[in-house]
Amino acid sequence: MRLIVPLQGVVQGRGGLFVGSLIPCCLFYFLQLYLKRRRSPPPPPPPPDSDSSSELPRTSSRSSLFTRGNSIGRVRVSSRAAPLAKPPDSPYYIGLERVKTDPYDRVTNRDGIIQLGLAESTLCFDLLQRWMSENLMDSLMMQSDGSGFDVSTIAMYQPFEGLLEVRVAFADFMSRIMGGNVSFDPSNMVITAGGTPAVEVLAFCLADHGNAFLIPSPYYPGFDRDIKFRTGIELIPVHCRSSDNFTVTVSALEQALNQARKRGSKVSGILFSNPSNPVGNILSRETLHAILSFAQEKNIHVISDEIFAGSVYGVDKEFVSMAEVVAASASGDFDKSRVHIIYGLSKDLSLPGFRTGVIYSFHEDVVSAAKKLMRFSSMPVPVQRILISLLSDTRFIEEYMAAHRQRIRDKHFLFVEGLKQLGIPCAESGGGLYCWVDMSSLLTSYSEKGELELFEKLLSVAKINATPGTACYCIEPGWFRCCFTALADEDIPVIMERIKLLAEPSTS
Amino acid sequence: MRLIVPLQGVVQGRGGLFVGSLIPCCLFYFLQLYLKRRRSPPPPPPPPDSDSSSELPRTSSRSSLFTRGNSIGRVRVSSRAAPLAKPPDSPYYIGLERVKTDPYDRVTNRDGIIQLGLAESTLCFDLLQRWMSENLMDSLMMQSDGSGFDVSTIAMYQPFEGLLEVRVAFADFMSRIMGGNVSFDPSNMVITAGGTPAVEVLAFCLADHGNAFLIPSPYYPGFDRDIKFRTGIELIPVHCRSSDNFTVTVSALEQALNQARKRGSKVSGILFSNPSNPVGNILSRETLHAILSFAQEKNIHVISDEIFAGSVYGVDKEFVSMAEVVAASASGDFDKSRVHIIYGLSKDLSLPGFRTGVIYSFHEDVVSAAKKLMRFSSMPVPVQRILISLLSDTRFIEEYMAAHRQRIRDKHFLFVEGLKQLGIPCAESGGGLYCWVDMSSLLTSYSEKGELELFEKLLSVAKINATPGTACYCIEPGWFRCCFTALADEDIPVIMERIKLLAEPSTS
Repeated sequence: MRLIVPLQGVVQGRGGLFVGSLIPCCLFYFLQLYLKRRRSPPPPPPPPDSDSSSELPRTSSRSSLFTRGNSIGRVRVSSRAAPLAKPPDSPYYIGLERVKTDPYDRVTNRDGIIQLGLAESTLCFDLLQRWMSENLMDSLMMQSDGSGFDVSTIAMYQPFEGLLEVRVAFADFMSRIMGGNVSFDPSNMVITAGGTPAVEVLAFCLADHGNAFLIPSPYYPGFDRDIKFRTGIELIPVHCRSSDNFTVTVSALEQALNQARKRGSKVSGILFSNPSNPVGNILSRETLHAILSFAQEKNIHVISDEIFAGSVYGVDKEFVSMAEVVAASASGDFDKSRVHIIYGLSKDLSLPGFRTGVIYSFHEDVVSAAKKLMRFSSMPVPVQRILISLLSDTRFIEEYMAAHRQRIRDKHFLFVEGLKQLGIPCAESGGGLYCWVDMSSLLTSYSEKGELELFEKLLSVAKINATPGTACYCIEPGWFRCCFTALADEDIPVIMERIKLLAEPSTS
Repeated sequence: MRLIVPLQGVVQGRGGLFVGSLIPCCLFYFLQLYLKRRRSPPPPPPPPDSDSSSELPRTSSRSSLFTRGNSIGRVRVSSRAAPLAKPPDSPYYIGLERVKTDPYDRVTNRDGIIQLGLAESTLCFDLLQRWMSENLMDSLMMQSDGSGFDVSTIAMYQPFEGLLEVRVAFADFMSRIMGGNVSFDPSNMVITAGGTPAVEVLAFCLADHGNAFLIPSPYYPGFDRDIKFRTGIELIPVHCRSSDNFTVTVSALEQALNQARKRGSKVSGILFSNPSNPVGNILSRETLHAILSFAQEKNIHVISDEIFAGSVYGVDKEFVSMAEVVAASASGDFDKSRVHIIYGLSKDLSLPGFRTGVIYSFHEDVVSAAKKLMRFSSMPVPVQRILISLLSDTRFIEEYMAAHRQRIRDKHFLFVEGLKQLGIPCAESGGGLYCWVDMSSLLTSYSEKGELELFEKLLSVAKINATPGTACYCIEPGWFRCCFTALADEDIPVIMERIKLLAEPSTS
């Protein structure tokens, strides 16, 4: 229709039908003239590995076809899988891969690469070790009525979205770690085999191929894979700045949305992490309210990734769930069905090996669709059984969460203090297993290139893997995400020493 | 270019450029004339729940926008999720849902619906119960070096494709249950959280959106969801007939491929189950060879779903893995990278609750891409630990597999004999947890409609859920898949009695 529309003016104008036809006719004449002059040679034979080579006349016998088996060449993978088979190009994944080649160990490999790239915590493994030693057996083998082991309770098919008992346990647990200010309905909940499939399934349900989500940046680099690998949804960074401590503003959202629409993108939602990943700041109730208002006004979805909700260690700021903002609003104010929450146990309970995620949605169609998609990512029943016991052990959970927060706070203090001694500041943060470090003073040039050079120098010379801001779509060069919750206290001086050597001018 | 190509003949002919331009010019003139006459009225205002309503001039204040919050209406889910939120339309899923409303129990609900729709086995739960009672704790808590429990071995991130130990254990186990005639390389293997994601991930890697797989029918109805929900790949049934005991032939594949190509479909591979699901017949070495030859000739992929490989109970036919056919072929004959195998433990070890699947591929790019996609479907580490112990316990595995096969054979005999007494024949079968029953004698009309009426009568009157052939894309009406491995012996006469009553002419 695009061709017709501009010509309609001509057709409707005084020129009438004749002129409206003459213009394209002339254009077509010259196109044909051009094509005739540069008539292309006959198409080349299909490349040896082309699918169309199988369209050859079937005169050759099957055996002769086989002799040219190698000339047909190898069969091809899909064009969407081909890029996945290649080595990663994001510095985030490059760093993670590099650590595997020479991982630091404070006893056996003191010269190895220290991992600051992976958000995992070992701070409370003593508590988990105790609970598992005492309860793992019973959680798997005792029935809820106290009777003995029945293998059918773990071996047989169960609802893909999770047993009701595990959803009830999750609802209670999430409410508890979010300060008890909000309650969750197990029927709005779908349990997934990890936070990662929770993000992907939700994205699949909220937007179509070619649609887009706005996402305040810097953002968690894994979202690129979570969302771009298979859903075909575009992520549009909404750039936040150090002057706002990287907090998103409605005007930035508005601007990004308008630009996206001008480009022809259909924006279906806003995705963000709270506490933010990689910055670690906590979104205020006002900011959450503003985001929800913006989404309401634009009639788009809101996806709040709250996977670090229980890893809040700041003393001055409390975590507020988007679910709480929804509940606090007058019922007429918002269409709450646009709100969806991601949760999981990889961070707050330090159990990434358990592959545990949660989709919590106020939209019944999203819940229904996600339940069906759980055939691809359902949590094995033995793990559900363990989690029912673990999450329902409220005494343990209270003890664990208090220790978890306190120990992150202590480690954060040590780490940030160590950097401060070197004159390296961090963004203000109060949640997450990392801090957001301003290493711009170490850059040789204030640019993405300079940042990537520093990333490489950190990896190769200082033997530290920290995630550069460019992997998180940060527009200010020199910021790095450093995860500190898998470090022992004695590792921190080692890191600071290594950075110090890097900062000093080379003597060579 | 399609417009240009037919005109090239004119342009190159005597008519030359002038005629070649005159024809489209005239056509364009009449098109404009037509458009002008029926000029459409201005577009209607967007519907109240349209996304574009947010494009209204932003003169209204935010609060006034909220007061019309309800007029904006509810936000919409993606168009690909919307159909998923609806109730199922396949009789396979309708039947499964209906059983949940009134499940038969031989003690507490003798009038309930008997489940013959779900391929799960309880036949060897006594053996599993014993093994789990004795070994579950050690498998989770003992380290491979015999040292005590270390929570970090189950809590932390591990490779998404599965620990090397679990892949080695799977390679040994698969080789063992396939008669030891073929070996599997753990580096070609990716462990998934269920056979279902194994199918989806593989499909994603082998074909693009809009491409197609040929699939001999009748086929397992779950493939529709596995593949159509998210990959956008079309499944083209290759109809097999009772006269061939529903075994696929190369001429049928050839015909289906040609028809598909004529329709413009790009066929990327052939997907089939061996032992076949729902028929239960076992593909001969010759058939496998013919399929592979066909795939080689057409340069397409072969996906062999061998999830019932260890559930072969026939005495006259042995199971042959596609991997064995590949290994037996001279290296120049085939491009083995086109061969991919699906496996899992839901059927052969009766552990669907463990969500365990395997992708085995000879294509290194498929393995690489599938490893990365495992972020969405990786197996929790505690389950991997249990499976390492279970699969490595060769004495138990030998005992279990022998019992599993013997007990399926016995139950199959009872079930098929019971039907025979009623004059109802079954297709010849030697593998799987089901048989393929010819109930055409019970049809009131020999048609899909007649079959669906019988399905409904079985569900509502006889209170039996069996999967009708139409759900499996069978072209001959009257066939039903009946899963018998979750039945006790004493359930079988109950089923036969119910079918008998249905077969008798109603007295009312």
